[in-house]
Amino acid sequence: MKTYLDCFPCFMRQALFAAKISTDDVMLQRKVLNRVAEELTRFPLDATPVEMGEKIHAIVKEITGNKDPYKDEKRKYNEIAINMLPRLREIVNESSDRLLSAIRIAIAGNIIDFGSLTDFNIENSLEHALNVDFAIFDYDEFRSLLNSAREVMYIGDNAGEVCFDRVLVEELNRMGKKVYFITREEPVINDITLEDAYFCRLHEIAKVMSSGSTAPGTIIKHTNKEFKDLFYRVPMIISKGQGNYETLSNEKRPIFFLLKVKCSVVARDIGAGKMDIVLKYNLK
Amino acid sequence: MKTYLDCFPCFMRQALFAAKISTDDVMLQRKVLNRVAEELTRFPLDATPVEMGEKIHAIVKEITGNKDPYKDEKRKYNEIAINMLPRLREIVNESSDRLLSAIRIAIAGNIIDFGSLTDFNIENSLEHALNVDFAIFDYDEFRSLLNSAREVMYIGDNAGEVCFDRVLVEELNRMGKKVYFITREEPVINDITLEDAYFCRLHEIAKVMSSGSTAPGTIIKHTNKEFKDLFYRVPMIISKGQGNYETLSNEKRPIFFLLKVKCSVVARDIGAGKMDIVLKYNLK
Repeated sequence: MKTYLDCFPCFMRQALFAAKISTDDVMLQRKVLNRVAEELTRFPLDATPVEMGEKIHAIVKEITGNKDPYKDEKRKYNEIAINMLPRLREIVNESSDRLLSAIRIAIAGNIIDFGSLTDFNIENSLEHALNVDFAIFDYDEFRSLLNSAREVMYIGDNAGEVCFDRVLVEELNRMGKKVYFITREEPVINDITLEDAYFCRLHEIAKVMSSGSTAPGTIIKHTNKEFKDLFYRVPMIISKGQGNYETLSNEKRPIFFLLKVKCSVVARDIGAGKMDIVLKYNLK
Repeated sequence: MKTYLDCFPCFMRQALFAAKISTDDVMLQRKVLNRVAEELTRFPLDATPVEMGEKIHAIVKEITGNKDPYKDEKRKYNEIAINMLPRLREIVNESSDRLLSAIRIAIAGNIIDFGSLTDFNIENSLEHALNVDFAIFDYDEFRSLLNSAREVMYIGDNAGEVCFDRVLVEELNRMGKKVYFITREEPVINDITLEDAYFCRLHEIAKVMSSGSTAPGTIIKHTNKEFKDLFYRVPMIISKGQGNYETLSNEKRPIFFLLKVKCSVVARDIGAGKMDIVLKYNLK
């Protein structure tokens, strides 16, 4: 997905929010905004918004010296979500379509996104994702490809959300699939790193690995060799959230985007409304 | 009021909105955002947000060549509002406190503000302003000062809103006060100019004059001599809206700020909540 001018005010908003969470020093916050404003003037619109996001959070880290400002929020939402696991599993167990319920649960967890939102309600998101119609629903293609696939790459998105992802990974396991669960290389916003995947014990049910990306998305050219080899080899890829959609939507790979749409720019690009839930096949 | 860092994303939002309403050319819109981003890096936080607003809209005009992008919107809301006048007058006539009702109506009109909002509902705003409690209510001081004042300066804010102001000016007339009704010098956002005051025939009930300010507020150092002489002489000043509040809140003059709070920064500064209605005396 390319960058729209509508992203520009949002870049400043993200920069300010990250600066504030990183330091109380208003002069440092101002310095962050100034550097981001300068970067904006040079940023090419054919790059993805995530590439600007990467710059923003690198600037915040450099200027404030805070390498993981969302650390407490990540821990908080990991703990909230892991405590919900028994209930989430029960929903799947009581469902007439286990796979679809697990997909809905994974999407519900995508509300835990400090890149797009500063305030959210997990219970409302769960209730909504379990009951609402999908705006885009390529479930037939999902089941069909999954039938023939022995391996699935699952590109995660955020801390907390990862415990919701676990429910879907468990279901994939149950169906006999080998899952590669992908995290970011280092902390950026509240995106998952290896540590978050381990927290939710994903390594017990999947091969957990980092993409090598330090951006809040998956910029293929910045990923490591191991990720790239897998990405171009596996028969099926599940991509969670907006950042992964923004960076992977133009890749000609069998990717299913599972997300909750949280901004009007992604909404327009993907062809859905804000707060809609989406299961979109990239090669359709 | 000083500028807060929270204003920065909003400056970009305002710039983008004004650029879009001024031209369909995305490259020109981008040029506007780049120039605004550059200006942001140099903007002193002890200046008022309106001073940045003035720069933004000057940049939009210069780059797009569109000197009055809100012309159609201004006409539209002038016409909507003038058609509401008989009903607004009836509300005052049927009221047990004519002056307070007229104040509430004037504040209701302050919703017509393209600087803060891109979407609003006038009927809801009227209903709200007529019924809700004021967050700040210096009405005793207002009545008391008005009792002794023979002349009142009334600094208007937006097109459309001016017809709501008319109801309060009529009430001031009825009480035997001479009113100086102040507009901006030239079009900026949907702020009133002389033309809008004439449209609502304010010149029949007040002395209509421009402050000389080309900003969406009243930056005293940029006002004309006639305005300044009056501003420092009249015993009572009514100031409408956020832009006038932002630029006049530090002036040691007997100003009453009448406004609907539309942004969280003004809310925090004035000590009220978003969407609250306020009647605040500056010298209290």
